[in-house]
Amino acid sequence: MVPRRLQFNLDEFRWDEIAPQVYKARGDEARGMDWSGITRHTLARAAELPAGFEMRYFELEPGGYSSLEKHAHAHFVVAIRGSGRALIGDQLLDCVPFDSLHVPPMTPHRWLNPDGPDRFGFLCTVDADRDRPAPLDDAEWEALRANPDTAPYTF
Amino acid sequence: MVPRRLQFNLDEFRWDEIAPQVYKARGDEARGMDWSGITRHTLARAAELPAGFEMRYFELEPGGYSSLEKHAHAHFVVAIRGSGRALIGDQLLDCVPFDSLHVPPMTPHRWLNPDGPDRFGFLCTVDADRDRPAPLDDAEWEALRANPDTAPYTF
Repeated sequence: MVPRRLQFNLDEFRWDEIAPQVYKARGDEARGMDWSGITRHTLARAAELPAGFEMRYFELEPGGYSSLEKHAHAHFVVAIRGSGRALIGDQLLDCVPFDSLHVPPMTPHRWLNPDGPDRFGFLCTVDADRDRPAPLDDAEWEALRANPDTAPYTF
Repeated sequence: MVPRRLQFNLDEFRWDEIAPQVYKARGDEARGMDWSGITRHTLARAAELPAGFEMRYFELEPGGYSSLEKHAHAHFVVAIRGSGRALIGDQLLDCVPFDSLHVPPMTPHRWLNPDGPDRFGFLCTVDADRDRPAPLDDAEWEALRANPDTAPYTF
């Protein structure tokens, strides 16, 4: 293996050699698993480093949102572009560069860019060996719907 | 575990609740293991997430440098403040926000802020379970000394 530099192009807010990818495959019709206006940029792959983690950059257009999901693996997120909002458990957490967020295991969460006007982008590090995201169960869904703060983000 | 947000203070370029720490303990007198003007800010601890990785932010004052070392674990680095230089293997790689660098296993490396005028800061993610840094062997040291590009960074 040789040292590798991913050069960043500030004007385009993109890394050379790192093509934006689809956030995730469509077809999960489960409640809350819809998403819109979000791309995935895989910066560090476990097999390439090599290491036990991966780092991805996700970017949300104004109005964009990720699926409302939970999983056993944790996220560590560092915002680097624009501003956005995270629903994590029953909390709404706004963030700007370089605010950082812990998403604990099995905690329902969704990323949003409700206000714009800029794109909201963040680095998200995860264990390479991890479980698949799952939709919320009825009790989790109803609790978020019953809370006037979180209800608008439960769709 | 509860969601946690580390708020970032842009004026101070610091995260609330994250105190700067000493880069590493003094006392390693091995060739190349000296360092100067560098702090460590541990953003994500494996036990807290929980996860198999940790994320640290390192910051170098103008003129600062880390130890010249190698280890079996890989680094994935994302520059976020100022500009700086990495010696990785026989390469010198300059970086600005958000250039990203892979440091492969057992590759000698040193971080430097040779030019200033700003502080050079970068995120560095590693496996939580990792080996200790070691000094270079004679062949590695002499190869860097014999190369006019890398010789100035071999001290």
